[in-house]
Amino acid sequence: MNLILLRSDDHWSDDQRVQLTDHRALHIRTVLRADVGDSLRVGLLGGLQGSGRILSLHDEAVTLEVELGQQSPSRHRFDIVLALPRPKMLRRILRAAAEFGVSHLHLIHSARVDKSFWQSPLLKQEKLEAALWEGLERSRDTIAPEVHRHRLFRPFVEDQLPLICKGRPCWIADRGAPLALTQTPPGPAVVMIGPEGGFVPFEIGLATASAARRVHLGERTLSVDTAFSAVLAQGLSAI
Amino acid sequence: MNLILLRSDDHWSDDQRVQLTDHRALHIRTVLRADVGDSLRVGLLGGLQGSGRILSLHDEAVTLEVELGQQSPSRHRFDIVLALPRPKMLRRILRAAAEFGVSHLHLIHSARVDKSFWQSPLLKQEKLEAALWEGLERSRDTIAPEVHRHRLFRPFVEDQLPLICKGRPCWIADRGAPLALTQTPPGPAVVMIGPEGGFVPFEIGLATASAARRVHLGERTLSVDTAFSAVLAQGLSAI
Repeated sequence: MNLILLRSDDHWSDDQRVQLTDHRALHIRTVLRADVGDSLRVGLLGGLQGSGRILSLHDEAVTLEVELGQQSPSRHRFDIVLALPRPKMLRRILRAAAEFGVSHLHLIHSARVDKSFWQSPLLKQEKLEAALWEGLERSRDTIAPEVHRHRLFRPFVEDQLPLICKGRPCWIADRGAPLALTQTPPGPAVVMIGPEGGFVPFEIGLATASAARRVHLGERTLSVDTAFSAVLAQGLSAI
Repeated sequence: MNLILLRSDDHWSDDQRVQLTDHRALHIRTVLRADVGDSLRVGLLGGLQGSGRILSLHDEAVTLEVELGQQSPSRHRFDIVLALPRPKMLRRILRAAAEFGVSHLHLIHSARVDKSFWQSPLLKQEKLEAALWEGLERSRDTIAPEVHRHRLFRPFVEDQLPLICKGRPCWIADRGAPLALTQTPPGPAVVMIGPEGGFVPFEIGLATASAARRVHLGERTLSVDTAFSAVLAQGLSAI
């Protein structure tokens, strides 16, 4: 936790004083081992960041005096369209999306996505936010990725994708494509990442007929979580 | 599993016939739903890859007739020095190392590595190999990374690092460094990645006095598993 993430629905006594009683209070006491008078890096979810001076600290609660004034780091240049991964991978993919500062993450269905994945409790707003916040705390960010769910592949690709990709290129990761993602021009783009086993040829066909062009991530087949971080890491190259 | 990984200590009846009775047999029957006569992609750990035709298939065992002749994909240009991560991260880091085709992974101690991590059962050869093989099966490789353990930071950095880095640059990931990893020259290199919270300044000092130069991975702090994949993904850029 490199930043204590505050929320507007926390227990604020005025616009500068907030009391924390959950895992954040525990973290301040037991991991950071901070004491009254110490200053911690804090950020307001969806807003600015700055410092929080500890006014009081008990077993149950930590009260901070908060001063905010700094912008969060800039956003990643890629928005991501991702075939819904298996639940055990989704959690760390959400965390990585937040760490890299992705603005929009579109979770879509695909032929090789098990329908049961859509029942994962992790897709509930509350769990999903917890996974995203973990990434924000890591990368000192206050802006969470917006996560969108699209449970039908074809309407998504035919109707939504052209709108999402308007004014910027759309790349679809496909092993054996002639162009490497690292060879694409800098600037904003949308990148589509398939499920374990990849998109099926029919899906690649629909996507390329709609808005996407095929790119590869290297000569090796990668797991979805590895591919996800690889795409975003390669997207940093232009910065 | 994009490749069935065979080992020389499997149950071979001659140099072309092997019988599998473990999770690989289960995978062939229940996930691939293969049948007698089908050909599967197989590889011999540490050797060549090719195809395996199913000769027989029962609840307990699958017998393959194996023909090997193809080289595995080329190795990654980076060797990695990594501060030993917490056990829950180590497993997927080992998998990712194998997916990317890392030749040597040096796990080292560092001030911010909890000493208890060295007691992790995952560091036992058998568990470690299982995690690596999972990555090989994913990326269709037969060559596992060699994993080296160094439990003392200073002797490693002063005595081993110059030897490891002989003839190639050595980069140490450090947020705020003036040079980006993506701006370093192509070709073989060693990259050092710190623990959660990073290397302490004293360690950065020792490493740079020995063989390393500081590089950054972008402006954001990343989790160790994300940083690990990011380094290897950025190392693909030159291919």
